[in-house]
Amino acid sequence: MASLVTPKITLVGAGPGDEELITVKGLNAIKTAHVIFYDALANEALLNYASAQCLKIYVGKRNNNHAYPQEVINQLLVDYAQTHGHVVRLKGGDCFVFGRGMEEVLHAQVNNIPVTVVPGVTSAIAGPAAAHIPVTHRNVAQSFWVITATLQDGSLNPQVIEAAKTNTTVVLLMGLNKLPEIVATYLQAQQATLPIAIIQNATLANQKVLTGTINTIVAQQQQMQLQAPAVIVIGQVAALQNLQVV
Amino acid sequence: MASLVTPKITLVGAGPGDEELITVKGLNAIKTAHVIFYDALANEALLNYASAQCLKIYVGKRNNNHAYPQEVINQLLVDYAQTHGHVVRLKGGDCFVFGRGMEEVLHAQVNNIPVTVVPGVTSAIAGPAAAHIPVTHRNVAQSFWVITATLQDGSLNPQVIEAAKTNTTVVLLMGLNKLPEIVATYLQAQQATLPIAIIQNATLANQKVLTGTINTIVAQQQQMQLQAPAVIVIGQVAALQNLQVV
Repeated sequence: MASLVTPKITLVGAGPGDEELITVKGLNAIKTAHVIFYDALANEALLNYASAQCLKIYVGKRNNNHAYPQEVINQLLVDYAQTHGHVVRLKGGDCFVFGRGMEEVLHAQVNNIPVTVVPGVTSAIAGPAAAHIPVTHRNVAQSFWVITATLQDGSLNPQVIEAAKTNTTVVLLMGLNKLPEIVATYLQAQQATLPIAIIQNATLANQKVLTGTINTIVAQQQQMQLQAPAVIVIGQVAALQNLQVV
Repeated sequence: MASLVTPKITLVGAGPGDEELITVKGLNAIKTAHVIFYDALANEALLNYASAQCLKIYVGKRNNNHAYPQEVINQLLVDYAQTHGHVVRLKGGDCFVFGRGMEEVLHAQVNNIPVTVVPGVTSAIAGPAAAHIPVTHRNVAQSFWVITATLQDGSLNPQVIEAAKTNTTVVLLMGLNKLPEIVATYLQAQQATLPIAIIQNATLANQKVLTGTINTIVAQQQQMQLQAPAVIVIGQVAALQNLQVV
């Protein structure tokens, strides 16, 4: 049986939510997959493009409720490639933006399985865009810094403290539970009136957006109770949407 | 005639180069466009998906050789939407990553033309990925900072100096002509052995990759003579590709 299959693994970034924001190349990989391992953040509607024979296996993670440890996922990809052929690993957003994609690539390569990475549209950029917030804008922001707010041990990423002292656009993923700490960091950096926005379920029909300033956002969030997954964007660009007619 | 058309503008990120790295939504916009204004960095093969009647107008920029000033492009989008209907603005990478997309959005809105933004895969992330370099990696990089190296006046973006002092992954766009200045900045920050990679024509058949360290890269580039468009990535992640079998 092993000789009948040609093992390969394709990591595919599913994009930020809207199923049409996957790439053409990513969709083609799904169509030819024998097995798909998919995340909580990947739009499940994409599975409908797979063949009827394709195995679809959920290995999602959300709120620290891990269905499988990463090391197990790494090995599952290899095992199923050897027995079934083309394995697609479908991940929310982009494979290499806090997606632990490189761990899967390296494990596949150690096991001599050819691996391809199909990049995806990241929610770090498309999330703000869906709220009409550009991460860069002439004369306003000449760079943007994308940071996971929460480290593995649950603490605030200290790079948020560094970022608060700069005038770059800061995009925070996994930051909603850390909002009071993030705000305290920016207040300490004398940035009380800096614009901030939170985008929940970006690019999906149930998207919600909250915009304010550093000194207003905690009270706003207490009232609105946005939920994960959410992207936080901080900087003057977060006020640009107020200029708009629609 | 004006009453026969329904004006609208869609900004579409064409992705980093490979024509299959456009999103499904972006490709659908192209298929229904009456007019497409396209950039030098957008893959021209994508124009083949437009209808035969669709006007295809080049407004590219490369090496400061601007076919049209940005203000003229902003107005062309509005004018053609009013006379022709659906105008697609096809831009390399993502619309909001140094793409001046928000200027086009705001001008359309001032003129009461409905405008939609379809995000794209940015070369800032997919460029390194195409060289097997992840912008984030567990225990190596918990953030990445994307910076345009060259400001409008031609000078080095001073945020590169700030970034060199951090341990974030730094991705520089429009940096090739500034390589000696970038290297000097990192040397001053005591980062002589930090890994760096340059990726030219990322995701295309003629992609070229140069990897080294801060204290070797200028000599390497003098020998290899990589050309724009190129993405520069600096940080420990740039050495991860050396771990790989393929």
